[in-house]
Amino acid sequence: MRQKRDAIRLVADLMEAPALDAESRVTDDNHQSLRLWLRMLSCTNLVEAEIRSRLRLEFGITLPRFDLMAQLDRHPEGLRMGDLSKRLMVTGGSITGITDQLEQEGLVLRDAVPDDRRAYSVRLTAAGRRAFKRMASVHEGWITELMAGLSGAERSAMCELLAIMKRGLTATEQNDH
Amino acid sequence: MRQKRDAIRLVADLMEAPALDAESRVTDDNHQSLRLWLRMLSCTNLVEAEIRSRLRLEFGITLPRFDLMAQLDRHPEGLRMGDLSKRLMVTGGSITGITDQLEQEGLVLRDAVPDDRRAYSVRLTAAGRRAFKRMASVHEGWITELMAGLSGAERSAMCELLAIMKRGLTATEQNDH
Repeated sequence: MRQKRDAIRLVADLMEAPALDAESRVTDDNHQSLRLWLRMLSCTNLVEAEIRSRLRLEFGITLPRFDLMAQLDRHPEGLRMGDLSKRLMVTGGSITGITDQLEQEGLVLRDAVPDDRRAYSVRLTAAGRRAFKRMASVHEGWITELMAGLSGAERSAMCELLAIMKRGLTATEQNDH
Repeated sequence: MRQKRDAIRLVADLMEAPALDAESRVTDDNHQSLRLWLRMLSCTNLVEAEIRSRLRLEFGITLPRFDLMAQLDRHPEGLRMGDLSKRLMVTGGSITGITDQLEQEGLVLRDAVPDDRRAYSVRLTAAGRRAFKRMASVHEGWITELMAGLSGAERSAMCELLAIMKRGLTATEQNDH
């Protein structure tokens, strides 16, 4: 309860902060942005390391393998290797390796892509979907546990702030290209 | 201005949300936590991809090399290879590779570690410190630009929420070990 009030008071206080002169405001904005980014990176890395270690201990699988199955679960029609590589931001080579392994275990299938003889797409088999659902449900419990330091209201506020950040980032990306 | 008011109203509204029955609350909490995590991961990945690409284009260097120099800049007394590997969450092999390269360019030095004949620590040379400072200042400008979708008040609120999250994560980690 104290933390929720603190977060609200913080936003309110800051909106009433006196205007700084232009130069100190720039430096201040820069440091604040950097602090925000480093803190976000550090939280993301902590969660990712924890999930990576739990996936290995609990299911004996790697995080990239879990992420690949999660992408396929969201696209039951299948995804091309190039799309997977882009979505997972990893090289084509490691995706081929994971796909080979999953295919041997009967968890994914490769399909030919019409009109492109060299390309193929990958999709989960029924067994693959079941295996992923089991892991995803445990994974969701871990995430809930790891996010439990925040109250529901704080999680919602952060979701909203991240949505604003993401809109800004997507706009920057589009200006680049 | 509208966004700041929205963020404050959001936190305030949510604190007054009616209590749900226990089961829907659990599912709801889980989904909310997962949504928060996926959104955070997605923002982090977008920023990281952008920084990675700008470091390559602007300075011809990789993100791991920048991160390694940033760690050394924060520890002028030097860091052991094992510490670097832990802090950067990458394998010892790739750290050795980057260190070799930086040493050839006169940007880092290796020192023997007293009482451990097999170990050594790495630190930035004066030239390495200057090279890093130049890049760090440009990097800070990029981060400011990428975070500009958020107002100052929103960035502060998010910093605060991340601090709460981080305390929760560190507590979870300590319980694990």
